[in-house]
Amino acid sequence: MILLLGGTGYFGQAYQRFFRQHGIPFRCVSRRDVDYTQPTHLARLLAELRPDFLINCAGYTGTPNVDACESHKTECLFANSVLPGRIAELCADAGLPWGHLSSGCIYTGCRPDGTGFTEDDPPNFDFRHNNCSFYSGCKALAEEILRDAPRCYLWRGRIPFNHIDHPRNYLTKLMRYDRLLDARNSLSHLDEFVRATWECWERRLPFGIYNVTNPGSVTTREVVEMILASGVVRKTFHFFENEAEFMRTAARAPRSNCVLDSGKLLRAGIHLTEVHDAIRDALAHWTTNR
Amino acid sequence: MILLLGGTGYFGQAYQRFFRQHGIPFRCVSRRDVDYTQPTHLARLLAELRPDFLINCAGYTGTPNVDACESHKTECLFANSVLPGRIAELCADAGLPWGHLSSGCIYTGCRPDGTGFTEDDPPNFDFRHNNCSFYSGCKALAEEILRDAPRCYLWRGRIPFNHIDHPRNYLTKLMRYDRLLDARNSLSHLDEFVRATWECWERRLPFGIYNVTNPGSVTTREVVEMILASGVVRKTFHFFENEAEFMRTAARAPRSNCVLDSGKLLRAGIHLTEVHDAIRDALAHWTTNR
Repeated sequence: MILLLGGTGYFGQAYQRFFRQHGIPFRCVSRRDVDYTQPTHLARLLAELRPDFLINCAGYTGTPNVDACESHKTECLFANSVLPGRIAELCADAGLPWGHLSSGCIYTGCRPDGTGFTEDDPPNFDFRHNNCSFYSGCKALAEEILRDAPRCYLWRGRIPFNHIDHPRNYLTKLMRYDRLLDARNSLSHLDEFVRATWECWERRLPFGIYNVTNPGSVTTREVVEMILASGVVRKTFHFFENEAEFMRTAARAPRSNCVLDSGKLLRAGIHLTEVHDAIRDALAHWTTNR
Repeated sequence: MILLLGGTGYFGQAYQRFFRQHGIPFRCVSRRDVDYTQPTHLARLLAELRPDFLINCAGYTGTPNVDACESHKTECLFANSVLPGRIAELCADAGLPWGHLSSGCIYTGCRPDGTGFTEDDPPNFDFRHNNCSFYSGCKALAEEILRDAPRCYLWRGRIPFNHIDHPRNYLTKLMRYDRLLDARNSLSHLDEFVRATWECWERRLPFGIYNVTNPGSVTTREVVEMILASGVVRKTFHFFENEAEFMRTAARAPRSNCVLDSGKLLRAGIHLTEVHDAIRDALAHWTTNR
């Protein structure tokens, strides 16, 4: 049985759907029922349920966006750095394998040769480089804390999307924002991310860090063109002149825009759809019914 | 009435002695009685006790020394960064003034002109500069989180000492270590620190950051000479050749050695003894009776 922490969030709900669809037994524990952020409560939960695997989708991402983390630093630091550290300690004590939802937002840009960052590249958008949002800093700190965690997967996702309209869906965001920042990014199809991370455990891949993004990268303008070509919305999209104007007029925290290399996952035999194809497919099946 | 959190630690016990000596009403709450790290519990405590002022001495410093923080990162981050953030939020909600025990260990060295760092100098030994111990990083992160906390004192102490033999006393440490690293530091006489911080509140000084160190700075060799001159111990002290040898053979985390300027406190009318005089006086009254 799989124990799912943070199962009510955007990723957590996707895991619930996936487990139900595939008849995989799981328990989703809500913080309202059991405050698993407290080590004694989580230890008791693990002893009672004796799960085979744990997935930590809990985190604080800020509402409506990452800027909210700048004014909720304590909660951001606790949920994104301390909680994974506590889970790691208890899983180590219990000999329980587990996976943590990390993030590719601990990078900015791409490698000097234009390729994406691999799992071996140290973060370059974190507290250590003093250039990051508080959110990215906390996610990178979690990777630092979990570096020596035994039997732990660190799954790095990036800007999630799928075919279902949702405030956390990248495509929804692009359709709704007044103005957009053109930048190149790797993205993660939400449901492919969930399936791929599950396969890591199902196939008993070696523990460690995995970039779980769709192969390739896209610019915001490319995605907008695909949205227009799909006919899902008809509107004129406006762009900020550059990142400086975006930061000056619309954002509080610097944003991570980056390209990740997902070759490690591919070499392990786990495939995700090429990113342009995945976006076009999501738009072709676009629905506002959740 | 004063509410003292973390009252069983080295600084906390000094506050307890001070309040008893001066007949100042206080309540010392232990985590064993009330887990004040949980916001709901601390909120209830504040509502029940209705203190006039709160002092947070709680923190994780590592045993026997700061190296332990490198292998207890989660606890270090929680106790030194998240907990003060939670206290700040609840004190703000309750309109309660309070003081937090910060640290001068978020600096290394001195200003380019050889003078000590003032409260206006940003930290230079923290995650943002990627040169620090995990402990220093967490203490600096707390200052970042508390930057906009209303009605909050941030009291920066440094390497505490007094006349009572104790594993946390700098003089005891120097007497017991096999080998010493020669470095220049500002220090805080433990009991003078407690008295000075209390005066901040008693005199209703403006809230904000205060370096609470004894004026001046000393090198390790100077302190050793004073120890020898005092006759408290008779032994040959050995020194590491340099910081590189110390780091290679004896330490895990880089150490903060730094000079702080305590002029802000002085200008506010709060005096601490010049550091050499304070050390000589502690040694003249040296006792192994706690």
